[in-house]
Amino acid sequence: WENYKNGLTVKLLTPQIYIDSIWKILSVLEHEFQSRLSAEVVLVPPTQRQTKSAPVQARPGSVAEKLNNDDNNKVKAHVSAVPYDNVNAFVLQLEGQSRWRLMPNPHAQLNLATDGGAVALKDIDEWSKPTIDTVLSPGDSLYIPKGWVYQQDNHGTSSGDPATEHSLHLKLCCTHGTTGTTGDLLHLLVPEALGEAVQANVQLRSALPKGYHLHLGLAASEVEGDTKRARLQKHIAELLKVVADKALEILDPAVDQLQKQFIAARLPVPLSAREEACCAAGAPHAVIYPYTALRMLRPGIATAVVEAGKVVVYHCMDNSRELYGTALSPVEFELDDGPAIEALLAAYPDSITVSDLEHPSEELDDKIGVAQALFKEGFLLITDEVSKPSHGPPPKKKPGVRGSGDGEKLKKKNSNGVDGKKKLRVQEPDDDDDPF
Amino acid sequence: WENYKNGLTVKLLTPQIYIDSIWKILSVLEHEFQSRLSAEVVLVPPTQRQTKSAPVQARPGSVAEKLNNDDNNKVKAHVSAVPYDNVNAFVLQLEGQSRWRLMPNPHAQLNLATDGGAVALKDIDEWSKPTIDTVLSPGDSLYIPKGWVYQQDNHGTSSGDPATEHSLHLKLCCTHGTTGTTGDLLHLLVPEALGEAVQANVQLRSALPKGYHLHLGLAASEVEGDTKRARLQKHIAELLKVVADKALEILDPAVDQLQKQFIAARLPVPLSAREEACCAAGAPHAVIYPYTALRMLRPGIATAVVEAGKVVVYHCMDNSRELYGTALSPVEFELDDGPAIEALLAAYPDSITVSDLEHPSEELDDKIGVAQALFKEGFLLITDEVSKPSHGPPPKKKPGVRGSGDGEKLKKKNSNGVDGKKKLRVQEPDDDDDPF
Repeated sequence: WENYKNGLTVKLLTPQIYIDSIWKILSVLEHEFQSRLSAEVVLVPPTQRQTKSAPVQARPGSVAEKLNNDDNNKVKAHVSAVPYDNVNAFVLQLEGQSRWRLMPNPHAQLNLATDGGAVALKDIDEWSKPTIDTVLSPGDSLYIPKGWVYQQDNHGTSSGDPATEHSLHLKLCCTHGTTGTTGDLLHLLVPEALGEAVQANVQLRSALPKGYHLHLGLAASEVEGDTKRARLQKHIAELLKVVADKALEILDPAVDQLQKQFIAARLPVPLSAREEACCAAGAPHAVIYPYTALRMLRPGIATAVVEAGKVVVYHCMDNSRELYGTALSPVEFELDDGPAIEALLAAYPDSITVSDLEHPSEELDDKIGVAQALFKEGFLLITDEVSKPSHGPPPKKKPGVRGSGDGEKLKKKNSNGVDGKKKLRVQEPDDDDDPF
Repeated sequence: WENYKNGLTVKLLTPQIYIDSIWKILSVLEHEFQSRLSAEVVLVPPTQRQTKSAPVQARPGSVAEKLNNDDNNKVKAHVSAVPYDNVNAFVLQLEGQSRWRLMPNPHAQLNLATDGGAVALKDIDEWSKPTIDTVLSPGDSLYIPKGWVYQQDNHGTSSGDPATEHSLHLKLCCTHGTTGTTGDLLHLLVPEALGEAVQANVQLRSALPKGYHLHLGLAASEVEGDTKRARLQKHIAELLKVVADKALEILDPAVDQLQKQFIAARLPVPLSAREEACCAAGAPHAVIYPYTALRMLRPGIATAVVEAGKVVVYHCMDNSRELYGTALSPVEFELDDGPAIEALLAAYPDSITVSDLEHPSEELDDKIGVAQALFKEGFLLITDEVSKPSHGPPPKKKPGVRGSGDGEKLKKKNSNGVDGKKKLRVQEPDDDDDPF
């Protein structure tokens, strides 16, 4: 705080770890934008201009440290340049006032920039007339589009009077939007497609035509009427088409992988007390019956992908509030269980009754086994009144049904047992009278 | 040798470092195949079968160590499986006899395999009738195509009699052929093209369409008549075309990079005494005159590429006989010097006279400056009788011409000075009477 008194800005990074309300906001926005969001709380002292920042809690190598470095870069360029980010940002003014000026990036190739940076003021002809020049008061919010240049001053008015009080704002950054850009998908898809194309196509494993380097390369590009060169270019173009076709062929699994990456980056779901009582967090031993109705707690918090001949279910319930704080702990199922799993994941916002699940075996025990294993993972909610654990043991309890198939199907890829899971509670449960 | 007596095979890896004749053979083949070759000398003791190997001189992480490990893998599978390599190999029998059986790989996708491995004998129906079953005697050579399965036994005859003497053979492996497969070029080209396409095309920097994951992915692939899915696939196909077009656009610089990689992997050129006397190795201070005729020592040992607005000349004269034993030490020139450099590199097998070089400045001093700087790198040979250093100082010596432009143009990227270069001598020079 000594530094703060001397005019330094204080940033609280990853506040969602410490402040439940920010966790809840981010969790909702994460679903809306289909994207992880980062957050920081920024406290600017009552001085004429933000000159330096002293971030707190930046651990080496952490995301916080990275944000911190980005920020330092921006600050260094403060006087002669204005920063832009590779994220969509939302500013929520909490206390005091702050003046913001922003406008589209003058460099077209930095529109929707993939990296943050700064643009020299001398390159911005129109900076004296920014698109937006506004003062935020408590309760105001501002959207800063990805790639736009912006400047924040802790000024009381847009005419530039020095601020007499501090400014406190929350900045939420939507890292990508819909789990990534189209380029991100291609970055995942294309190298994989190239590898598979080489395995599938012997032409890609053949040596380059003898003497090809005499007809390609910058030196050869100046020779006119080289028919060998034209043939080589056509050959490469055809093989690029082979790779592109392979990419389209593996588009579906690549999209599944992107969804898996999103789930790995998501926040755990904040539960209300009522929700907690009806899912594994509050009722880990709840029994699943043929008439039990289930649905996901939130849409998109779990996904099923086919990997090495198994259906693998990934979900974000065990994630920590810190990005990648815990590794995903997926559950593997046999391919036969695929349709039942897909039905449970796809039903939202409706519920589905266990006996209505499809299974090639037609066995009720198999359906219950799948539902029980997924319920234990914590992302399913019991929605029928009879099965709800808070209503005590239901009347027609059938011994032997509970946990059917668990031993075979529940294969944790890491060693975290169900009992070892950390409970995620927003507040103390008020109707949790789980009888088991 | 204790182990050798007990029946272990001894391998001498990278013999080209120690044996000049192997260095010379490899250097010639390297040009013919446009590919680096590796070599090993294999000594098999007079026993019934090669069972284990005890390689020598395998340093951790070295290529030798890798070869060694590959070999161990093969040997482990000796009884029940036969190996194949991801290289074209040539066996030269030096002493004794050895029996070789080989045939095409039974797995089509291992035709021109990209990795070595072994195929279980039970998967090879025709192994009792291999394509080739022959006994090599000293002087015989055998070609083992990439991907073919083979077995070597130290047998005296093809009927399987145990050998009564040792077998010694040299194995030369052509790692890729024409500096790589078409797939290698695409592995270099495609990621670069994707990166550049993302920078150039705002569609690739845009977020994926909202809800795209509901229409793509394995679960969505089973839904029929999904028009949104078809539109998304078309969108991705169009963007893949953008990447492929970018790849064709940057094909020439990518080929230049591949040539540079080949030059980095090449052996230094073995010089005859006569050659050495007429190039920088034997006459480092030779003067270049306007009438001096120059040509490259061997075709393809140097290449000029444009990097960051400079013409950069890479050559293999400073390479060590061990793969990547020394880093490339390129020379940078201004773009203006490009045509003169290109003419000197392209003239082979003809020579070119310095005054005939093209230069935008039309200045003779600039032409001499380029030629002198390249001559110092060691890959150019003086071919006119008058300039030859072995003939002593020429009659019409012009003071001030020597070394013109050196200070400006010779910018070594690493700190190796010209004087620090190791001379590459096949034998002691017999006509080296360099007067300088």
